[in-house]
Amino acid sequence: MNEFEVKARELVGKMTLAEKCAQLKYDAPAIERLGVPAYNWWCEALHGVARSGVATVFPQAIAMAASFDDELLYKVADAISDEARAKYNEYKTFGSTQIYQGLTFWSPNINIFRDPRWGRGHETYGEDPYLTGRMGAAFVRGMQGEGKYHKVDATLKHYAVHSGPEAERHGFDARVSARDLHETYLEAFRYCIEKSHPAAVMGAYNRTNGEPCCASETLIGLLYGELGFDGYYLSDCGAINDINAHHHVTETPAESAALALRAGCVLNCGGAYAHLLAAHEMGLVDEETVTEAAVKLFTARFRLGMFADDCEYDNIGYDVVCCEAHRELNLKMARESVVLLKNDGTLPLENSAEGKLAVIGPAADDVDTLLGNYNGTPDSKTTIYEGIRRAYRGRVYYARGCRGYYSGDREDSDASGVWDEQYLRDAMLAADRADVVIMCMGLSPAYEGEEGGFGHGGDKPDISLPEAQRRLFEAVASRGKPIIYINVSGSAMDLCEQDEKCPAVLQFFYGGSRGGEAMADIIFGHVSPSGRLPVTFYRSDGDLPPFEDYAMEGRTYRYFRGEPLYAFGHGLSYTSFGYSDLTPIPKAGGADFTVKVKNTGRVYGEDAVLLYIMGRDGVPGEPIKTLAAFRRVSLAPGEEAEVYLKTEPGAFMRAGEDGKKRLDPGEYTVSCGALSARVTVAV
Amino acid sequence: MNEFEVKARELVGKMTLAEKCAQLKYDAPAIERLGVPAYNWWCEALHGVARSGVATVFPQAIAMAASFDDELLYKVADAISDEARAKYNEYKTFGSTQIYQGLTFWSPNINIFRDPRWGRGHETYGEDPYLTGRMGAAFVRGMQGEGKYHKVDATLKHYAVHSGPEAERHGFDARVSARDLHETYLEAFRYCIEKSHPAAVMGAYNRTNGEPCCASETLIGLLYGELGFDGYYLSDCGAINDINAHHHVTETPAESAALALRAGCVLNCGGAYAHLLAAHEMGLVDEETVTEAAVKLFTARFRLGMFADDCEYDNIGYDVVCCEAHRELNLKMARESVVLLKNDGTLPLENSAEGKLAVIGPAADDVDTLLGNYNGTPDSKTTIYEGIRRAYRGRVYYARGCRGYYSGDREDSDASGVWDEQYLRDAMLAADRADVVIMCMGLSPAYEGEEGGFGHGGDKPDISLPEAQRRLFEAVASRGKPIIYINVSGSAMDLCEQDEKCPAVLQFFYGGSRGGEAMADIIFGHVSPSGRLPVTFYRSDGDLPPFEDYAMEGRTYRYFRGEPLYAFGHGLSYTSFGYSDLTPIPKAGGADFTVKVKNTGRVYGEDAVLLYIMGRDGVPGEPIKTLAAFRRVSLAPGEEAEVYLKTEPGAFMRAGEDGKKRLDPGEYTVSCGALSARVTVAV
Repeated sequence: MNEFEVKARELVGKMTLAEKCAQLKYDAPAIERLGVPAYNWWCEALHGVARSGVATVFPQAIAMAASFDDELLYKVADAISDEARAKYNEYKTFGSTQIYQGLTFWSPNINIFRDPRWGRGHETYGEDPYLTGRMGAAFVRGMQGEGKYHKVDATLKHYAVHSGPEAERHGFDARVSARDLHETYLEAFRYCIEKSHPAAVMGAYNRTNGEPCCASETLIGLLYGELGFDGYYLSDCGAINDINAHHHVTETPAESAALALRAGCVLNCGGAYAHLLAAHEMGLVDEETVTEAAVKLFTARFRLGMFADDCEYDNIGYDVVCCEAHRELNLKMARESVVLLKNDGTLPLENSAEGKLAVIGPAADDVDTLLGNYNGTPDSKTTIYEGIRRAYRGRVYYARGCRGYYSGDREDSDASGVWDEQYLRDAMLAADRADVVIMCMGLSPAYEGEEGGFGHGGDKPDISLPEAQRRLFEAVASRGKPIIYINVSGSAMDLCEQDEKCPAVLQFFYGGSRGGEAMADIIFGHVSPSGRLPVTFYRSDGDLPPFEDYAMEGRTYRYFRGEPLYAFGHGLSYTSFGYSDLTPIPKAGGADFTVKVKNTGRVYGEDAVLLYIMGRDGVPGEPIKTLAAFRRVSLAPGEEAEVYLKTEPGAFMRAGEDGKKRLDPGEYTVSCGALSARVTVAV
Repeated sequence: MNEFEVKARELVGKMTLAEKCAQLKYDAPAIERLGVPAYNWWCEALHGVARSGVATVFPQAIAMAASFDDELLYKVADAISDEARAKYNEYKTFGSTQIYQGLTFWSPNINIFRDPRWGRGHETYGEDPYLTGRMGAAFVRGMQGEGKYHKVDATLKHYAVHSGPEAERHGFDARVSARDLHETYLEAFRYCIEKSHPAAVMGAYNRTNGEPCCASETLIGLLYGELGFDGYYLSDCGAINDINAHHHVTETPAESAALALRAGCVLNCGGAYAHLLAAHEMGLVDEETVTEAAVKLFTARFRLGMFADDCEYDNIGYDVVCCEAHRELNLKMARESVVLLKNDGTLPLENSAEGKLAVIGPAADDVDTLLGNYNGTPDSKTTIYEGIRRAYRGRVYYARGCRGYYSGDREDSDASGVWDEQYLRDAMLAADRADVVIMCMGLSPAYEGEEGGFGHGGDKPDISLPEAQRRLFEAVASRGKPIIYINVSGSAMDLCEQDEKCPAVLQFFYGGSRGGEAMADIIFGHVSPSGRLPVTFYRSDGDLPPFEDYAMEGRTYRYFRGEPLYAFGHGLSYTSFGYSDLTPIPKAGGADFTVKVKNTGRVYGEDAVLLYIMGRDGVPGEPIKTLAAFRRVSLAPGEEAEVYLKTEPGAFMRAGEDGKKRLDPGEYTVSCGALSARVTVAV
């Protein structure tokens, strides 16, 4: 028993049953006689301290995943948690804390982005369990710090399998095979718990294979057992009420509360645990269970230094919020998150005083597309249009081109008809005047997001551009000018037409408050792009299984047997990298690898080197290939480096139909860029 | 008959009755056999070309009124019409024109802002008929140009009396006395028609004294008779349908169409004139009336050079849109439109690298509050916060402080409660860190505006700050730092508490895309403020008659007998001006005046010198005082100028109870600043 638990047991031992029950609610009241201030557990920090006033707004999670730079993400999370602590240190001078003012953050979202139609997919690190695990663990470590106390608590969510549909989330039953569960859906949870010891895990709204996630003995058992979790398990907001109201597994909130608490859900976001005392009186839950839950939560609060006078983080001052170092970190991450999908040599653009550019599209000057969701308020911000306009020495013509789903659109409709025709014509006139057109289109966080959004209950109905933007693209393309197409979205879109018609295509994943500067840096060649796609860009919805189907077959690069437009991991550069000498270094149960990477082009560049284990012919159920290692390198022109690609001990293990992971000794193929190597794996 | 009418008669003479009827609709179809392209009459340019893509977005009309600078407004309108022509020249290359792409602009709005609760008041030039007339005439002249052809058509609206309530506008009957009608409501129309020959006048939605304005023989008779109008009269959009649907004056749209056309309304925005042919068949309107209406409209189109090959404006190129000259004009107008309401010497602020400012409030970083309504898309924009942040050399802390009614608020509610508490605390923390706090609060065009807005059907329920902002002000004020309060609104607000508690108070009337730069220029003393209030800032709603009451008694500085917080014409400077030698120069029916104005302070400054004619004791029905002349001067420290204040020939005439204006010879008092003079007026 660690010192925090000792103190927690002592404190909780002085509480009445009613007091203990009340402490299991997210808005825990003060217990004045014991010197316990009120505490609200609900805080958000998906990509910066969120909903708590001004804070550095880093790129959205999916954008940071595109960097394949978990070392940088660690620094980002370290900066976020510094800002969080600085704010907490000030907020607590008011006495208690209110919502969004504490130290317990309900981030990261490490669900697998299994289908591009899921509205909340941009909160995740993409479709790959290993990438998600690496990024999630880096985030958790950066948030929690490595001192005696936790700097802040990080929370893995949503456990488990959660990924839409948003409109049905409160009553949905996700049916998933044992193999997919262990091979895909739980893997990032397992990885993050092992590598970063998150303080908390949040249960999902949905049922998984019939059991409500927030009260699932099966899932919570796995979590504390096989997955090795030792923190506190909490509910998503209102999820325990859903057990009776929408899942119809129980009849009343009191029964739901008892079911969840007995299963191990010790903290409730929502109102259900207000019924705990009643549930106890009905004999549905015993005091011991309540006590142990309260001990878990107070252990966490002691570990956060909330009751200590020697906590090193108490000295973090308010001036770290939006400080220059964080601004620089933000720009660096924003630059690394841009993915160059196609380039025939048009990019980078010459920055000439005689040149004429048109910047067209509703996403070009839209602040929401910088901020994503679960975001803070930036202290400054630069849209893509503003970034280009400031950076470019020639003339810039701007046209919004159409309405729909962006900030400033009060109607939020896919506007069309004669009333919108002038948007189109204005865009055509701008295009006519320019040497090159930069189009910025796609979605916005108002369109793809959480339940209740504008798209399809939060989700996307399909992966096409909204209709008004399709018309805009056609109208501008008809003018015959070269188009640099910037797709702005937090998810894969159908870009077939753009790939065909545009000499260059870029992906901008809600790039944070400095996203526009980063994009301008890339467009004008100040920085070479280095992002890679963390999701597959399919050619069409027709390539996808039904959204409600949770089987992985046919989804993500690991199980999709068709030809994507842009593959997971795809990302171009302004320089070129030559790979050679992919060499296995065998170890028990697998191998690490080295590969030589040389910058064979003419400009400085960074490259994320990815290593895949290939599925074996004739072995059913294995992924087609699976990411097993990655590492970024920075190389000057002509420079070469040997990159060590370390795999995890279980990298070659695959889940069987029973969900159990086993190593099948034998010959495996790995690939890295265009290279491949054979390696014999022994136990 | 001028040459344009000759051509119009010739062309219309070739049309069938059906063709002529169709040409009276705002979306007039092409008549291919006659070479007449389709034309959409609906265009907007209240303070810049609106709803037609990128354009220079000047300050909102009420802001420009605060400049009391009709010479500058003329230049602004000249710039607007250049941009409009440039766009038209390009749009017509597509063949026909669509809505917002033509040359017939439905601006300015010269209604009298009789009550601060009217949501659309910020579209006007304020509460004074003379100021409104001066500004309106300058705008019309700048729009229409002074060449053989009209550069564009300007349209005075809404004729007559129109000023809320928005929610009832389609069926409202404004009851107004003959005296108020002529002394106040019609005066700016009369003035603008006499001075600037507007091409068009738009009828209002409401009835006036029982007659629907768009079909009022009384009002339209006055317009073409006493007021000397010789252009075309058109309906507000859907207003002719309202005659049957909401005013219940007729039974059917055909009857409404016939009634309006017979009364002289030759152009219909809306669908009613689609029934004209049917109305003719029912014998409700004769062909001659239709023909004369079509002649009026084609006379206008010929006068716009639409069918000419020698129109001087055809050569205006697209590059005038948002050109540098227009940018500079925009900044100048924005600076002149800011009103310094109170200053104990705190302003201007020292711009010190060691200083710390907090900028707090939901209006501080809000783009909508720059743009007002009926606006274009700016090619660049600077919010107040951004302007201050860029200009200030010290540290700036920003906090939004609360939600509600601003862009980015999807809920648009007067948000409150625990979910918003962190906004307040964040603001308090920012205040704590600063030497000086700048608060930017008030309303937004989403709150006060046209029918259907968020406030009270578009109108304001009262003149108080929304509740969430009142709480914010209290919370920040409680921190004890000096507060520079910037009221952001298009209308008068109750600023009693701010006046009492803040060392400096400024008014920002939706100041255009460069409004934030202008405000920073003033805050840091780069420019001395020179705006004056074009409306009375009352202390309370309790000071006002009921909103629905159109009697002028008790309204505006001319008839309000109470003590306002800030009077019409109030506006401070960073320098001081000494007035002396107010001297009448008698002329038939009145007098002009000269006054010496000296800059007695230490910085360069501009001053709008206002001359009022005072109401006479014992003469009932006269305004308390009434503005009769104004002129801006620019003076270096120590410099003195003699300012000639020219009054209109009718300046000393007042409307009697019968509405007739008469001169009552005798002694009058005029005032200018603190000076007054007596003058004997003879016929």
